[in-house]
Amino acid sequence: MVKDDCIFCKLANGIIPTNSIYEDDDFNVILDAAPANRGHALILPKQHFDNIFEVEDEVAAKIMPLAKKIAGAVKAVTGCDGVNIQQNNGPAAGQTVFHLHVHVIPRFDDDKFKLVWNPKSFSDEEQAETAEALRAQLG
Amino acid sequence: MVKDDCIFCKLANGIIPTNSIYEDDDFNVILDAAPANRGHALILPKQHFDNIFEVEDEVAAKIMPLAKKIAGAVKAVTGCDGVNIQQNNGPAAGQTVFHLHVHVIPRFDDDKFKLVWNPKSFSDEEQAETAEALRAQLG
Repeated sequence: MVKDDCIFCKLANGIIPTNSIYEDDDFNVILDAAPANRGHALILPKQHFDNIFEVEDEVAAKIMPLAKKIAGAVKAVTGCDGVNIQQNNGPAAGQTVFHLHVHVIPRFDDDKFKLVWNPKSFSDEEQAETAEALRAQLG
Repeated sequence: MVKDDCIFCKLANGIIPTNSIYEDDDFNVILDAAPANRGHALILPKQHFDNIFEVEDEVAAKIMPLAKKIAGAVKAVTGCDGVNIQQNNGPAAGQTVFHLHVHVIPRFDDDKFKLVWNPKSFSDEEQAETAEALRAQLG
């Protein structure tokens, strides 16, 4: 299903032209218009899902094999030193377009990107409690 | 294949005990020992692959459906506002343990994490050239 007011639906389905680098029945992979580095690509499902919570398992299963393929090509073409695969869900996680997408970001030893967070410190007991709650949730 | 000197091989396969929250034939999902937030989980394949470039497609296909499942549980248990799915390849990309792993990171509106990079500016021509090179590589 394509959502009328969704820019990524339009890009994924060729309604708005863009720099596509790969296309198949389920996905269009395009260059990010505000690239972190040269070759920064976005994997877009053609079907609309807001985020990972909504994606169908059948589509989800094709994402990581495709990310592997794209990461390899990005490395070959840009000569990057590393690659981040990143997928953000919700404004709190930095998602700004609410159509599921996966970033493939070429990284260089000297690019000075920095993910700033302060790792939290939890006691062994707190960690065990969290694990127990998650195990119960996962059933 | 389990690699002798790999800490994540040992955690994934229960050779070293840890806070496991989910396990199946292919994966062990554990709590990160240095969590960005409460409930920060790591998806570890039991088999050793250094990174996304090496992972078998059959294993890769199971990652995103599993990430969806874990993200849902993490959201339910922690009440987080968003979730990042992040997978780093190579020291340049922030990978510190060289056994493929996928972070599932609960995020909160007020957690003040910040991914610092300066989006690059490329001309339309440069972007088109990059896209062409990637299409050729993928083609």
